[in-house]
Formats: sequence, structure tokens, C-alpha cells
Amino acid sequence: MNRLSLFPNATKIQNNQLTIAGQALNQLAEQYGAPLYIYDRATLDASAQEYQGALAAFYPGPASVTYAGKAFLCKALAAWTQLHNLTVDCTGEGEIGIAVAGGAPREKILVHGVNKSMADLKSAFQHAGTIVVDNLTELIRIQLLLTNYQASAPNIWLRLLPGVAVTTHHAHTQTGQHDSKFGMTRDEILEAAKFCKENKLPLNGIHFHQGSNFRDPEPLIPAIDMALDLAKEIGFNGEWHFCPGGGWGVAYHEDELPNPPVESYVRGIAEAVIEGCKSRGLDLPVLHLEPGRSLVARAGVALYRVGAIKHRGDKTWILIDGGMADNPRFALYGARYSCLPVEGLDREISAKVSIAGPYCESGDILIEDLPMPELKEGELIAIPVSGAYHLSMSSNYNGARRPEVLMVEEGKVDVMLRRETVDDLLRRDI
Amino acid sequence: MNRLSLFPNATKIQNNQLTIAGQALNQLAEQYGAPLYIYDRATLDASAQEYQGALAAFYPGPASVTYAGKAFLCKALAAWTQLHNLTVDCTGEGEIGIAVAGGAPREKILVHGVNKSMADLKSAFQHAGTIVVDNLTELIRIQLLLTNYQASAPNIWLRLLPGVAVTTHHAHTQTGQHDSKFGMTRDEILEAAKFCKENKLPLNGIHFHQGSNFRDPEPLIPAIDMALDLAKEIGFNGEWHFCPGGGWGVAYHEDELPNPPVESYVRGIAEAVIEGCKSRGLDLPVLHLEPGRSLVARAGVALYRVGAIKHRGDKTWILIDGGMADNPRFALYGARYSCLPVEGLDREISAKVSIAGPYCESGDILIEDLPMPELKEGELIAIPVSGAYHLSMSSNYNGARRPEVLMVEEGKVDVMLRRETVDDLLRRDI
Repeated sequence: MNRLSLFPNATKIQNNQLTIAGQALNQLAEQYGAPLYIYDRATLDASAQEYQGALAAFYPGPASVTYAGKAFLCKALAAWTQLHNLTVDCTGEGEIGIAVAGGAPREKILVHGVNKSMADLKSAFQHAGTIVVDNLTELIRIQLLLTNYQASAPNIWLRLLPGVAVTTHHAHTQTGQHDSKFGMTRDEILEAAKFCKENKLPLNGIHFHQGSNFRDPEPLIPAIDMALDLAKEIGFNGEWHFCPGGGWGVAYHEDELPNPPVESYVRGIAEAVIEGCKSRGLDLPVLHLEPGRSLVARAGVALYRVGAIKHRGDKTWILIDGGMADNPRFALYGARYSCLPVEGLDREISAKVSIAGPYCESGDILIEDLPMPELKEGELIAIPVSGAYHLSMSSNYNGARRPEVLMVEEGKVDVMLRRETVDDLLRRDI
Repeated sequence: MNRLSLFPNATKIQNNQLTIAGQALNQLAEQYGAPLYIYDRATLDASAQEYQGALAAFYPGPASVTYAGKAFLCKALAAWTQLHNLTVDCTGEGEIGIAVAGGAPREKILVHGVNKSMADLKSAFQHAGTIVVDNLTELIRIQLLLTNYQASAPNIWLRLLPGVAVTTHHAHTQTGQHDSKFGMTRDEILEAAKFCKENKLPLNGIHFHQGSNFRDPEPLIPAIDMALDLAKEIGFNGEWHFCPGGGWGVAYHEDELPNPPVESYVRGIAEAVIEGCKSRGLDLPVLHLEPGRSLVARAGVALYRVGAIKHRGDKTWILIDGGMADNPRFALYGARYSCLPVEGLDREISAKVSIAGPYCESGDILIEDLPMPELKEGELIAIPVSGAYHLSMSSNYNGARRPEVLMVEEGKVDVMLRRETVDDLLRRDI
């Protein structure tokens, strides 16, 4: 795999410089400062269209693609999801608030979460079309809300714990194994369905989630079969919803295999659902895909400026102006990233470098031992595949202020999030 | 070790309930909401006094205790440091801003950081008494600032990389090993000292940092000797500063040994410095201790409310309303915590439970397999030793809003930080 191919679709090398949608990255950093996150609108659009195209090609029933708010959500991104008619998966009141501010209508807001509070559920009642119920306690809370507030409930789907582990990069990206904190067992699902029936709750769907960043739809098949068995047993028919969750993989590093084709994800799921419904005499459900980070990870690039450079034994440390505060994925999962300089791309690779941030923490590393040309203090580097689970997990550690975030397209640069300031750090102080 | 002894000094069981400084924790959660962080003023005061008392007992020269801003800093905490005449260690412009807002005067602000930006250095020039220079690049930046802005420089200390690893719980809490990103080698220190002399920079101190949360001062001794050799070679005399850094350990779990005595930390360092200076004919330096988390970790308690409870094979999951968003230390380091219920403390321990947060992430766990009494939905639990590296590393992951933070003392409750709101999540959106 070519390192440049990790970057967004609209990335080019022009005049020996990296550009996205015709915008020179060094000029963007000059104007907006560094560290800087840049999202490529063309990559986002293409990702959404690719999933929707594959759904249209392989699934004859109604279908929808869900955007994972937890990967990255802000007002502008929520607004973008609506241009593509995506459902926004929100975890609780906070993300619901952002989706609403971005203009997502009730029917496109789906609420996930493993232990939703009353505040989360109230917010879901007010703004969401669907609540994916994780456990029986939550269902009792929903019933309480309905009784006390005379509200009408959003659609209810039940989250199945398939009890089957899939292979992911890190144990923390598995969610469906038998002792996972997520979802309900088969027996609990049946109990929940009975509760919904007795209390006339608008149950009309089933969901499961097997993990994230995987490359083969095969491990989803047994879980799809389990879920369809339950759908049959519950008695779903007519318009019912099925969301076989599990995030599709993206390559973060040129040593990995290329991104697995979206088609194989969509086709694998669609065929299993069609086949499974047919054999069980079930109506085809509204099929909801949750491709997770693969909708957004590749669209984002993080720019950093090189500061001090240190030679320590076999290691060359390139110290930059961001790190675990804006991207904790190395510290959390040992995630493996790649990188290119922003200028002078014709330089030959000279040696391996390790790239670390400015924070007082040994785990504040972004890249270890990556072959790079010789870098100089003051130049910029760009880390691709930075669109998902960086900013949503970012912190103010060491007093870091979170970076400015841009959306670029041909002839246009929009600031989605302004850079945090020292005043922002003090706004909660009494 | 007794589980209750992990809690702050002012913790008591009264009427079968946990109280701190006479404040019933369940009433605080009722009034301020959950999750809730509570700092015990008495524990903070006692920690500062214990270090200062030990310094007075074992070190005949001038001395100071440094508070690690990165462990937890807000305006009220910065103000508290000044009641005890502590130096505040700030990493860059963000933490300097908080310390200044809390009223820390120039001479009590010390600036650390591995790759300080020009903005960090400008802020240090404006507000700080001392910059601990990490590398030669930084020194050149300081010289540039002096030349361009006609400012006068704060005191300069040089950070030595001792090149000796100490035993800590996790590789990410080691900082002094030979290939670490931090500090300067012996040769670089001498080069930096020469640069300071030639450019008349106010160099008057040396610093090193060996890691955090260790329990024996012994591994600091070789580094102290290296640093004193360099002090001699540089020619420090009269009033010079020495900061042999390395955070002193605290117990997080009753299975660990009790907190190592502060006296052994202070005495071990003081004796090595006195002895080392005597044998080298060096004047006794102003001795700066950086005891890290041990000043603040035990003062903090995190309160959470129990939601859904799940039985999964051998595992019982207690799902609570906070987790890796306010405390990422399990996800980052596999940190091992303990916990007590807030009410009904006479209940017998019945089984092991695992305690996880509401976020859509398998790593969102706080505690695994801890013996606890049978917990009920809606009750509160308290996790001790939550004062350091929770809130400073906290995020808005899954739209989480960061918790309210209180300081309690006998007859008094102060809100230090208000709870974040959904509006706060949207404040950077353009």
C-alpha cells in the first residue's frame, strides 16, 4: 500500500507540497495555526455514497446508513449527515444535543448507550426517532417516563449480545463477546419483548454490535442468524428494523492491507439478511448499516508542527505540538499511524523516526519507528486517517487547548470548530 | 490494608453512611448531582504540611514543594497551593493561565514541558519565575525571545535525562530511561550551560524526572549523583536550585502495600543531596521536591450512581453514570481501583463485581472483579484515590459532560468546577 493512498481522496502533491481539494496544507496551517485538523468533504461524500450505492445494489428492501456520532460529531458534521440522509447514532444527551443543533430531525436520530440515564432518555423522548434499549432496567425507565410524563415513546429496538467474539486489533474494540457489558442475552431479549408487548411500547427493531474496525463480514453471520431467530420469535413483520452493527475497517498504515471493499461488507450483510429472512418466512426489515469509523476516519488529516528533534540511542524523537491530548489512540490501543511531511515530498526516506507530543507523559507518542525523510524544526507533518476517535476522545491534558477543525472542498474552507483558548479552560471555574 | 484507609483523612462512617468532613456523600450527590468529584481540604492541607515538615526536619538549606498542575488544576486548587506556599508546576500556556487566574505569583510558577512552543515560552516570560528547559532548541527559542522582545528571562533550569529506568507500574509512567523523549543527555546539558553562559541567560538550576508513583527513593540516588556532578562542572554556587523529580507513590487498592511514608522520600533525597554536595564541595542548593500525585490523589473521591446491573457468565457488571470520560486510567494503564458503597456500609461482601461506565467502548471500565456487597440500582458508590490524573485527562467522549467538582471541609462545601452542559459542548462550533 502506498502511503499517500492513506490520505483523503482530494489529496494531491502539487509543487512538491501536500494539498487537499486544492488547498495547500502549509498555507492552511499558516492561516489557522497548528495543530490543525482538516476534513475533506469529497472523501466524506464519497464514503456515504459508496455505502448507499452498495445498499441499493445488494439490498432490495428499505435501508439506511448510520453515522457514528462517537467517532466525531460537531454541528457542521451533523448538518453534513443530513445532506446524505444519514441516521445519526448518538450516545446520550450530549451527542443528541449536538445532532439537534446541526439540524438532524427526530427520525434521523438514533440513541445508543449502555446505561442511559433518565436525562438521556428524556432527551431521546424529546428529540430522537429510535432508542436502542441496552437492558431491562432501561426499559423500565422508559415505561416510567411514559407513565409520568404522558410522552409518546420513540421507536424501540432491542440490543442483542450475540456472545461471539470477533477478531479486532485490540480487546477494547470487541463488544459482542459473551461477558461484554453491552446488550441483552437471548433470554433477556425475549423478556424485554414481552415487557414491550404488555406495556404497549413501540418495539419494532433489533440491533447487535460485534466490535469495530474489522475486515470480514463473516463473523457477523452467526449473530445475524441469532437476531433473525429472535425477530421471528418476537413476531416482527411488516415494517420492522434490523441493525447488524459492527464497524468496517480502515487501514491506518501502509503496512496494512488496503481498506477492505465497502461492497464486501454491504453484500455480506445484505445476503445474510435476505437469505435468513427468506428461510424464516420473515418480511425484509429496514436494514440499517453502522459502518462506524470507515465513514469518516479517512476524511480527516491532522497537521502538526515539528519542534525539537532528539537523537537517543537508536531512536530519533520528532517532538511536535500535539499528541495524546488530541489523539489518545496510541496511548489507549497502541494504534499504528503513518505520516508524510507537508512540503518537500521529493526528499528521500533517510531513517526511522518516532513522533511524540509535548505533554509530560511517556505515553504521549503518536508514531514509533516510521521511515521518513530527514525532518527539520519548524516544518509541518500530516497524519492521515485522523478523522475518527481523535477529537471525540480529546482532552485538555497538560492544559492543551483542542485544535481548530476545518472542512475543505474545492475553492472553500469552512471552520467547523474553533481552537480552544485559555479562557475556555477557565469557563467552569467558580 | 483497610479499604476505608484509601479514602481521604476526613472520611468517616456515620449512621452507616460515608461522610467526608461531616458531609454525607449521598446528600452531596443529591444536591450537586452525579457523577461528582469531591476533594477533602483536610487531606490536601495535611499532605502539603507533611512534605514541608519533613523538608524542615531533614534538609537544612532552603527548600520548596512543587504541586504538579498536570495531576489536577483549576482556579480554586491553584489558589489553595498559595496558602501553602507551594510552587505550581505548569506545562505550557494553558496551565500557566489557570495558575495565574488562581493567584499564583510569578515566583511560584515553574514551567515544564518537553517541546514548549513560542506561545508557551512567551507566557512563561510573562508569568513564570522559572523555565525548566528540556532541550537545546528551546534554549535557542528563549534567546530569540530575549533578543526580539527585550524581555527579561525567568530563571532557567536544565532538565537532565538520567538514562536510568526505575520500576513503575506501567512503562508509560517511566520518564528517565535512556531512550526517553524527555530532557537532555549529560553532553547536551554541558552544551546548554555553555550556551547560557555565552548568552548571559539566567541559568541557576538543574532538574531531572525519573517517573511517577514509585515507592523507594533509592533509584533516584544515581540520578542525584549525576546531576550534582553536572552542577559542579557547570559551576553552580551560592543560590542555586536542584529539583530531583519523581512522583511519590500512593496506594489505589487495599491489596497494595500502604502508602510509602513521605518521610522516607524526603529523607532519602535530602540525605543524598547533603552528602553529594558535601563530597563535591558544592553549596547546598534550594531543594525543590516534586512529589507528584501523592500531594493530591488521596484527597479526591469520585461518586457515581449505579444504573443497570448485568450478570454475564462469571461476571457481574455494575453499570454506572461515569467512566473513561472522567477517568481514563483503567483504559490507559489498566489502573486498579477499589470502591465502597456510600450507604449501607454494614452489608456483608457477597461477590466480586466489575464496574463499567455508560460509554460505547469496551475499555470503559473502572474496576474489575472487586469484592463488594450486593449493590442495588440507584445507589451511590465512591471510588477513592481519584484526585490525580482523572479530571486533567478527562474528555467529552460520547458527549459526556465533565462532572462538578467540590472542595469540602468541616461545615463548608465549595464548588470548584461547575458541571459541563450541552451548551458547553457546542461552544466551539462555528
